[in-house]
Amino acid sequence: MAKNQQTAIRPVRTEDYPEWYQQVIKAADLAEKSPVRGCMVIKPWGYALWENIMRGMDDMFKATGVRNAYFPLFIPLGFLEKEAEHVEGFAKECAVVTHHRLEKSTDGGLVPAGPLTEPLVVRPTSETIIGDSFAKWVSSYRDLPILINQWANVVRWEMRTRIFLRTSEFLWQEGHTAHATAEEAIERTRMMLEVYADFAETFLAMPVIRGRKTESERFPGAVDTLCIEAMMQDRKALQAGTSHFLGQNFAVASGIRFQNDQEQEEYAWTTSWGSSTRLIGGLIMTHSDDNGLVLPPRIASAHVVLLPISRSAEDRARVMTYTENLAADLRRQHYHGHPVQVEIDQRDIGGARGWDWIKKGIPVRVEIGPKDIDKEAVFVGRRDREARERASIPTGKFVRDFTGLLDEIQSNLYRRALDFREAHTVEVDEREAFCTFFTAQNPVKPEIHGGFAMAPWCGQAACEKQVKDDLNVTIRCIPLDAPPEEGRCVYCGQTSDQRVIFAKAY
Amino acid sequence: MAKNQQTAIRPVRTEDYPEWYQQVIKAADLAEKSPVRGCMVIKPWGYALWENIMRGMDDMFKATGVRNAYFPLFIPLGFLEKEAEHVEGFAKECAVVTHHRLEKSTDGGLVPAGPLTEPLVVRPTSETIIGDSFAKWVSSYRDLPILINQWANVVRWEMRTRIFLRTSEFLWQEGHTAHATAEEAIERTRMMLEVYADFAETFLAMPVIRGRKTESERFPGAVDTLCIEAMMQDRKALQAGTSHFLGQNFAVASGIRFQNDQEQEEYAWTTSWGSSTRLIGGLIMTHSDDNGLVLPPRIASAHVVLLPISRSAEDRARVMTYTENLAADLRRQHYHGHPVQVEIDQRDIGGARGWDWIKKGIPVRVEIGPKDIDKEAVFVGRRDREARERASIPTGKFVRDFTGLLDEIQSNLYRRALDFREAHTVEVDEREAFCTFFTAQNPVKPEIHGGFAMAPWCGQAACEKQVKDDLNVTIRCIPLDAPPEEGRCVYCGQTSDQRVIFAKAY
Repeated sequence: MAKNQQTAIRPVRTEDYPEWYQQVIKAADLAEKSPVRGCMVIKPWGYALWENIMRGMDDMFKATGVRNAYFPLFIPLGFLEKEAEHVEGFAKECAVVTHHRLEKSTDGGLVPAGPLTEPLVVRPTSETIIGDSFAKWVSSYRDLPILINQWANVVRWEMRTRIFLRTSEFLWQEGHTAHATAEEAIERTRMMLEVYADFAETFLAMPVIRGRKTESERFPGAVDTLCIEAMMQDRKALQAGTSHFLGQNFAVASGIRFQNDQEQEEYAWTTSWGSSTRLIGGLIMTHSDDNGLVLPPRIASAHVVLLPISRSAEDRARVMTYTENLAADLRRQHYHGHPVQVEIDQRDIGGARGWDWIKKGIPVRVEIGPKDIDKEAVFVGRRDREARERASIPTGKFVRDFTGLLDEIQSNLYRRALDFREAHTVEVDEREAFCTFFTAQNPVKPEIHGGFAMAPWCGQAACEKQVKDDLNVTIRCIPLDAPPEEGRCVYCGQTSDQRVIFAKAY
Repeated sequence: MAKNQQTAIRPVRTEDYPEWYQQVIKAADLAEKSPVRGCMVIKPWGYALWENIMRGMDDMFKATGVRNAYFPLFIPLGFLEKEAEHVEGFAKECAVVTHHRLEKSTDGGLVPAGPLTEPLVVRPTSETIIGDSFAKWVSSYRDLPILINQWANVVRWEMRTRIFLRTSEFLWQEGHTAHATAEEAIERTRMMLEVYADFAETFLAMPVIRGRKTESERFPGAVDTLCIEAMMQDRKALQAGTSHFLGQNFAVASGIRFQNDQEQEEYAWTTSWGSSTRLIGGLIMTHSDDNGLVLPPRIASAHVVLLPISRSAEDRARVMTYTENLAADLRRQHYHGHPVQVEIDQRDIGGARGWDWIKKGIPVRVEIGPKDIDKEAVFVGRRDREARERASIPTGKFVRDFTGLLDEIQSNLYRRALDFREAHTVEVDEREAFCTFFTAQNPVKPEIHGGFAMAPWCGQAACEKQVKDDLNVTIRCIPLDAPPEEGRCVYCGQTSDQRVIFAKAY
C-alpha cells in the first residue's frame, strides 16, 4: 500500500468532525443526497445495514409478543388536530398533499389539479391514524393489550438536514400499544426501552445510557419519554431511541375505549416507541476512524472479504480455486443464527483494493496469494486493528476460529466505545467548572467540547433553558439508575435532588 | 361444531364472488379499509403474509445478484415530465405535495402553509428518481450492470379501490437495472419474469402464464412488458407481476450515459419489474373456499394451531403440558429453511375456536384432549380437506411427518388451482363461440364468464379495443411459449399468426 493512502479519509476527525462524517459516508458508499430537498438515497452498502438492523430488532420485538402491521401513509388533517400538543409539535414540519392529479397548464407544463376537500399530511409519526384503528379494534378488556409495530417511512420537513442523522424522509419502526392499566403501559414503555438498549449494545456495540427526558424534551403529547443516549467520538450525545408512555392522552383523542371487567367504560393507556435510520449515523460516529467506516460484525453488511492475489495466469486459476473453497467453508458457518456473509474481490487494482474494504468497514480482510497457499495459510487483517497489522494464519485454524474472531472484534469495539465514553464523562458540581467543561477544552474547535457532565439540576425548565441559551448544552436525560442525591443545581444554585446528564447533542 | 357454522362465509362464492372476497378478508382478519380514501390497514395476520412474500422473493432476487437500496418517496414534478408517455400514464392519479407546514387560520383550524416552489409527487413508481441516481453512478461500461431493488410504498390515486387488489397506497418491490447492451437488458427482463413465475408457483401455489403484453397494455414508457397472469376462481385473470424492458427511453430521459469499451459514449439500457400486495389478493382468490381463507404452507402466517381441550382443572394442566411439549417439538423443525410457526389457542369458546382457524386459513389444526393423550395421539384437520374430515394420528408420527404433510398440502393446492385453470381454458376459433364463452355461460351472474380463451388475433389495436368495448374482455398476454400458428382473427377475421389469451380481468 502506498504511503499516501495510509489515511483514507480527509479531513481526519480532529480537523473537522462533521466533514469527516460526510466523507466516511461517501468513501464507504453508504448513501448520498438526493435531488429532493432533505431526502437521502440509501445505497446498497448502507441499506444492508438497515436490513440487519430491521432483522435484529424485529426478532427482539416479536419475542415480546409484538406483531407487525401497516397503516396509511396519509393522515387526514383533522386527525392530527385531535391531540393539541401533538399537532403543535409537528405542524411546522409537515409535507401536505392538497391535490390528487396533474393537469396541463396553458403554457404546456403540468400543474396540480383535483384539489382534495381535506388536505392529507404525510405521516410524521402515526399515533393518530393508528389510534383510529385501535378505537375500532378495542371494545372489551379482553381485546387488550394490543401490541403492534410498523416498519415505515415518515416525513418531517427539517430545515437543516444531515444524512442519516436528520433527513426530511427517514425509515423507522414505530411501535404502538394499548393497555387496560397505566401500570401495564408503563411496564411496556420500560420493556421497549430495554429492547433498544440491548439492541444498541449487543448489535451496534454502542454503549447507551437509559434515561428519562425532562418535560421540555418530551415527545409532543406524551406523559413520559424514556430514551437511550450514546456518546459520539466528538463527545456529543446522540438520542438513539425513545419509548413514550402516552397516558390516556391519545386514547381520549382517538376514542380508544373499553369495558373493564367491572363492565365500566374506560379509556385505554397507550405507548409508542421508535428508532430510525439515525442509528446508522450513530453507528458511523461511534466506531469509525480516520481510515473510514468500522462495522461491528453483528450488524456488518458483510463479514469478510477475500482478496485473491496472483501475478500469472496459472497462479490465478489456483488462487481462485483456493479462494472459492475458502468462501464455501466460511459460508457454511453461521454467525449468531445467520449465514456468514463473504465477499470476493477479484478486481485488478493493486493496493487500492484493500483500502476500499477498509473504508467500507468490513470486519475482516483476507489476502490469498500463491505463497500463502503453499503454506496452507491466509494473510488476515482486522478492522479493529491498524491497517498495517496483519498476520499469517493457517487456513484451517482461521476457518475454525472465524466466528470467534468476529465475536472478539465485536466486543473490542464495544469496550473501546465504552472506555471513550467513560473517559469523557465527569461529575461536575461547580458552575465554573461546568462552563469550562463545555467551552474551554478546545477553544479552536468548539464542537470538541468536554463530553457528558453529570451534574445536579434544580428541576426548573427556566434554568434548563438558560443552560441551553448560554452554552448550547441540553439535559440529555435523567439516568434511570441515578440514585437520589441532595445537592445544589450546577447552574442556578437552587436545591437539587438528582444528577442529570448535560451534553451538546445531535 | 354447530351445524349452522358449517359454512363460515356468507355469501358463498357462487352467490356473490366480490362480496365473498371482502368477507373472507374480514373473517380472516387480514386487512380493513382506512379512513383515508382508498388506503388500507394491513392487520397482523395479513401483514405476516407480506413478510413471507418479502422474505421469499428477496432471497430469489439476491440470488440473481440484485441488492436492495432506498430512494426518496417524493419525485419533483420536473422529473416525472422527462418521459412523455410515462407522465401521461400517471398524471391522472398522483398525490401532489404542495406545502411543507400547517398554520392556524383565522377560524382557528389548520391550513397548509409554506408553499413549495416546485410541487412534489408521491412516487407512483420510481423510474425517474432512480434514473437520476443511475445517471450519477454510471460513467463507464465497467460500472454496469447496476442491479437494484427497493421495497417501498407507492401511491396511485385510484378512483375505484378494492383491498389488496387496487388501493391508493400499496406496498411493493420495484427492481431497476441498467445495462451496457440491449441483449443483456432483455435477458434480465426475462430472468425477473421467471423469478416472479417461480415465486408464484412455488410459494403461492398459484399457477401462472408467462406472457407479453400487447402494445396498448404496456407500462407507460416501456418498449416491452412481460407479465404473469393467473386465473382466479371466478375465472377472471389477475396480473400478478410485470417485468419491463425500457429500451433507452428512460436512460435518455434521465441521462444515464456511459463510455463503452471503444471509448464511445452511449445511453444505457434499463429494465424495471414490480410486484405488490396485490399478490395477497391473488392468493386469496386462488385458494380460498366457502369456509374462508386457505393458505399454502410456504407462505402461511403460521403453519399449525394447537387446540388443547379439557373439561376439568386437572385435565387442563396435563393437556397444556402435552400441548407445550408438542409445540416445542414442532418449533424445533425447519420448513424450507425457516422454523415451523406454531400457534396455541387456549380460548374457552367451544367450536367457534376451530372455525376461527379454518377461516384464517391455517394449513393444519390439531386438537389435543385427555383421550388423545391417553392414546399418545392427536386429532388432525387439514385446510385442503373438508372441515369435518379429521383423523387421529399417533403423536410421534405426526411430528415426524409434519413438514412432509405441509409439502403435500402445498402441492395439492397447486394441483387444484392448475386443474381449475385448465378446466376453464379453451381454444376458440369462431367469433360466435368466443362471444358465447364470455357472455352466455352464466347469464344471471355476468362476472362468472367462461375463463381464458386462447384465440387467434390479428395484431391490430383497433380490433383489441373493439373486443374490450363489446365484451369487457382484454388480451391478457401473448404467451411466451405459444408456437406461431397461421389462422384468422377470432374477432375480425383478418389473418393472424398467433394465439393470445383473452379474458376478463382484475
